[in-house]
This record gives sequence, C-alpha cells and structure tokens, in this order.
Amino acid sequence: MKKLHNFSAGPSILPQEVFEKAAAGVRDLNGSGLSILEMSHRSAPFKEIYNEAVSLVRELLGISDEMEVLFLTGGASTQFFMVPLNLLDEQGQAAYLDTGTWSTKAIKEVSQFGKVNVVASGKEDGYTSIPKSYAVPSASTYFHITSNNTIYGTQLHEVPQVDVPIVADMSSDIMSGPLNTDPYGVIYAGAQKNLGPAGTTLVIIRKSLLGKIERQIPTMLNYQTHIEKNSAFNTPPVFPIYATMLNLRWLKANGGLAGAKARNEEKAKVIYDEIDRNTLFEGVTVAEDRSLMNATFVLKDPSLEADFVERATSAGCVGIKGHRSVGGFRASIYNAMPKSSVQALVDQMQAFEHHVTSH
Amino acid sequence: MKKLHNFSAGPSILPQEVFEKAAAGVRDLNGSGLSILEMSHRSAPFKEIYNEAVSLVRELLGISDEMEVLFLTGGASTQFFMVPLNLLDEQGQAAYLDTGTWSTKAIKEVSQFGKVNVVASGKEDGYTSIPKSYAVPSASTYFHITSNNTIYGTQLHEVPQVDVPIVADMSSDIMSGPLNTDPYGVIYAGAQKNLGPAGTTLVIIRKSLLGKIERQIPTMLNYQTHIEKNSAFNTPPVFPIYATMLNLRWLKANGGLAGAKARNEEKAKVIYDEIDRNTLFEGVTVAEDRSLMNATFVLKDPSLEADFVERATSAGCVGIKGHRSVGGFRASIYNAMPKSSVQALVDQMQAFEHHVTSH
Repeated sequence: MKKLHNFSAGPSILPQEVFEKAAAGVRDLNGSGLSILEMSHRSAPFKEIYNEAVSLVRELLGISDEMEVLFLTGGASTQFFMVPLNLLDEQGQAAYLDTGTWSTKAIKEVSQFGKVNVVASGKEDGYTSIPKSYAVPSASTYFHITSNNTIYGTQLHEVPQVDVPIVADMSSDIMSGPLNTDPYGVIYAGAQKNLGPAGTTLVIIRKSLLGKIERQIPTMLNYQTHIEKNSAFNTPPVFPIYATMLNLRWLKANGGLAGAKARNEEKAKVIYDEIDRNTLFEGVTVAEDRSLMNATFVLKDPSLEADFVERATSAGCVGIKGHRSVGGFRASIYNAMPKSSVQALVDQMQAFEHHVTSH
Repeated sequence: MKKLHNFSAGPSILPQEVFEKAAAGVRDLNGSGLSILEMSHRSAPFKEIYNEAVSLVRELLGISDEMEVLFLTGGASTQFFMVPLNLLDEQGQAAYLDTGTWSTKAIKEVSQFGKVNVVASGKEDGYTSIPKSYAVPSASTYFHITSNNTIYGTQLHEVPQVDVPIVADMSSDIMSGPLNTDPYGVIYAGAQKNLGPAGTTLVIIRKSLLGKIERQIPTMLNYQTHIEKNSAFNTPPVFPIYATMLNLRWLKANGGLAGAKARNEEKAKVIYDEIDRNTLFEGVTVAEDRSLMNATFVLKDPSLEADFVERATSAGCVGIKGHRSVGGFRASIYNAMPKSSVQALVDQMQAFEHHVTSH
C-alpha cells in the first residue's frame, strides 16, 4: 500500500521506522517472547523503556535535575486543571495569555482554584496574531502560554520576558527545535503530535514550585505522587510510552532538536512561499507569527474549496481540511513530515492554480 | 521466538491474533495507507473503531440505553475520585466494602467529597476472604465494591443484595463471564487485564445518577463532558482503544461471555485442583472466595521459592511471583490464557514436587 502524505493535526505522522519498530514490538518485544502489550509495567524491559524515554527527553531538551520528567495520561486537557490545582493558592493569581481555543480552555479551568488574570487575548482579531503588548504582574504564581496554536496556525517565536515561571502547553510544538528550559516552571504536551501516538502526556515540572499550597488533592492528580512513583503509581500507558521512546530515539539519531528545527524551517518555507506566491490562496495568520508546525491558508474564492480538497486527496494529500472554527486548509507539517510530502502538496496547489486560471 | 506462558497480573496476556492484528494496524490500518498511530481521532475509520468497541461492550454485557459506555484514561485510580466527585454530595454518604489494596485506595479518595462508610473489611484476616455479614444503609448514595482482588486472589461470586446502586471496580474480572448490569450504577475497569492493553479505562455509567449534585467539576473530570463528546472531548488513546476493540471482537467470536466463563472455570479448576493436591503448595484464600482470574498460592516451605521460580521460568512460565504484599505465587489466568498454559504451570508444580520429594 502506498503511504499517504498525512497532514493531520494530531494524532499525526510519525517516522515510518517508528511504525515498523512499534509493530514489531506488538508482535514480540526484542525477542523476549512477549508482546509489548502483555508486558508488566513492573518488568525490567518496560522499566528500561521508561527510563530511556525520560533520559531522551532530558537529553534532547537539556533538562537539569531541578526539573522532573513524567509521562502521565489525560492529555493537555487534564493539565489545564492539574496545574492550578497543584500550584495555585486560593488567594493567589495566575496570568494567562489567550492565543486561541486551547488557551481559552486552559483559562476556563483556573477560577475554581484561584484568581485568573488574562493579560492579553488575540480573540478580537480571530487569533490570527500573537498579542505582544502586555504586562505580567510579578505577584503572579505563574504565567501560562500556549506555545503553538494548532487550530489557528500561530506560534510564539520568542519566549516572553517575565519575572515569574512560565507554564507552557507545548502540545503541538514540543521537540520541534532547541529549547532553553530555564524560564519554565511547567512544560506539558499531549504526545500525539511530535512525541508519539495518542495516549500519554509529557509533563516537565520544576520541583521548587511544588509543596507550596495546603489544598487537599486527589492522589492521582498530585504531581508529587507521580514523581515519587516514576509515573507508575498506577499502570502507565505502556505502548504509547514505548512508541514515544522509539520516536525520541529517531529524533536523537536525526540531528536532535537542532536538526529538527532546520528541517522544520525548510519545510515551512516551502509551504508558506507557495501560499504567498499562489494567486488563488492566502495565509490566515500574520506573517511574523506563522507556525512552523501548522500552516493555515484559505482559497480567496471559497467556492473552489471542495474541488481542491478532492484533487489534493486524489494525489494522496490527506488531512488538509482546516479546523471547523477556522475553515479553509491546514497543513500540519510536524517533525516526521518529509519535505517531499510538503512538496507534493505544493505541487497540487500549483496544479490547481493552473487548472483554475486556464479555464 | 517461542511464546511464553504469561501469568502477569496486568498488563497481561491477550489473544495472539489480537497481537497480530494490532501489529498489522500499526503498519497500515486495513489498507488505508495510514498507521493507526497517525490516524486522527476525528477520522471516519477511528470513529468506526470507537463505535464498534462501544457496541461490543453493550452487546457482550447486555447494557441497556439507560447506561452510557465510555473509554477514558487515568485507570481505575482516576475513577476512585471521579465517582465521588460526580455522584456524592458533601452531605451524602457512600458505603464501601474493603476487600483489599485497591478497595483501600478507592476508600482513601472519598472523604474529600462526602462521608465514607466502610461497611466491612477483610483486613484482619489479610484479605483472604470476602466479608459477607454487613448492612448497607439505604441512605447511601451508592455501594462500592471491588469485584475481583488481583493482589489477594479473591472474587465476589455473588452480587451483594443492597437497596442502592452498586459501583464496581471490575478492573480484573470484567468480561470474564455474563453479568446482569441491573444492580449497577457505575462499572469501571482499567483495560489492561481482560479488555486490552494498558492506556484506556472502560466506564459504564447509569445516566439517572448524574446531574444530582451542585459541585463545580473540572471539565475533564465530569462524566457529562465525556458522554456528550463520545469520549472524544480531548484526543482519546486511539491505539489502546483499537486493540481493545480487536480483543472484544475475539471475545464475541469465541462464545461471548458465556464461553469465557466456561473456559475460565475449567482453567481455574486445573490450577486450584493442583494447589490442593500438591503436597508442597497451599492456597492463600478461603476456597469459596477463590478468584477465577488470579490464583494465589504459597510453598509450605518458603525456602524453596527461588528454586521453583527458576524452574518454572526455565519452562516458559513467567510472571508467577506473588505481589510483594502477599508473597508466594500468583498465576493470573485471564480470558486470553489458554488451558495449555495453565497445564504447563501445573506440570511444573508436579515436576517440582517430584524433584523435592525424591531428594
């Protein structure tokens, strides 16, 4: 079967060799006589897998011993409330930057635990740019950002300069390039874009932020529980962690995060150059805030949309329909997306321009 | 590679054909040109998988429209607090039966949300039997049981007769036999024993129990959220749900839950008969409460343990060491365990008896 060019926003493309190795592990993990699916989370082989995944996260992101690395479940949506539940005192306040749907969902969960201060919002311009003029009160317990906005196709290209720890939802751009983790108190990311398959959530947390509030916290929602048990207080999602580890190995073997960034910039240039050149299409977001992960664009004449989707799909380019709240198109070009797939989509955009303008 | 006899308590054995089909889907899902790992949770193929998994749960357990079937994450450990968070008013009280470690953990999470009434506990006799003399006050919002106690090897063979809805943690014996769901308000089960690989949690909930309390609930912890969104409020664990669906298909094709029960009773008889016959071993639990899923036993002379483990392991019988809180041995013989594997362990017990008594 011919592989498709998979532009899905997530779950999304992973390297072909990760699929091959993960499939082999489902049959028999490294000649152990057992499938990874039937292997105890207390077994030596799984502990090795887990430890390697944590080590690779530490190595790739350059994480110091001041931060813990956890693989949890429940997605970023669970971190939306675990963060204030664990860090924010009822008398305290947290600052949030509203850059889209996922920021808004994160903000919604805070007020149950403390005061929420939305320092700026891109809502008025339809989240097509990242607000840059705002002040974060130094009394804030933390400042929450969404580093990449999957739905709108914007990305924070500079880390905000603030006096308080940054908490970042990096679900859609984690590991897309080198990161200085110093400004961060918490980094979290659902696995299902650059990390691995759906089913586990990476949480990186600065230890000095913990243990400061008195609130009673259900055991499973307390970061301390998972730190003490190496993410195995209860049965962890064994296979999603295994596949994530395989993908992190691939990332390391392919130039690490510097290599990823170079490839991502190159791919983004290919698609955005075409969006800007092609007379039929235009970009959705302001140029300076364009995401390297999710390129959003529309047809100036929306009546042509169905025709373009059909032609692109026939050529093997799938998953390009924009999120229902934005419309148009979205090409998600995560780490594992080869440049040749981006070129295949660009070829379709050019062919479509030729088709439309020659009629 | 020769397959081992995998007696792990969970994650645990699944049918070989489930491993084969799951591995094939990781390479390419049904000739789609995409791996199941890169497939959007909003795609038609995944929606079909999800709907088939829900339908199979409904069909196998005979669940009426009065109950919702959800696939969530976070394991039974998350249900320990989601149940009282969603169902128990601060003025209300819930009754709990303490039959072991997992019951105890469930009980620990309740007091934050309402009053907890432990109606009976097996703690004093080391959880080797299921308490049967107790009364559940009719003012209880619900009565919580752990239907099978993985660690100790006990199982409730009769549903308690009570006037309130039963909430059951069935993590280790769900789908092991036919079930009348009428007495139940909530049934929950981590997938990683009889259902599928680790990474998803089945939650079956009676709709009439919801919407009765005023408490503010984080969106992800509210059952109503997941009911309204068909378990896809956020990205669900796509692969664990896929593999679970494959396993449910296997269960249906192999005689459904009546077939499973017949095989499980036959297998349990093989191992318990040997435990009772063999002069070196003895069972841990009272006979009437013996689990059909986890047979616990010890060597009367504990100094022989290491030798037996080594011999059994050499013969391919792995995962037989008892939980650290009980010691001895535990043979988990879930649905997918073939009788021939149970016989292989029994053969080792007999050979060991011969080896020891002939010296």
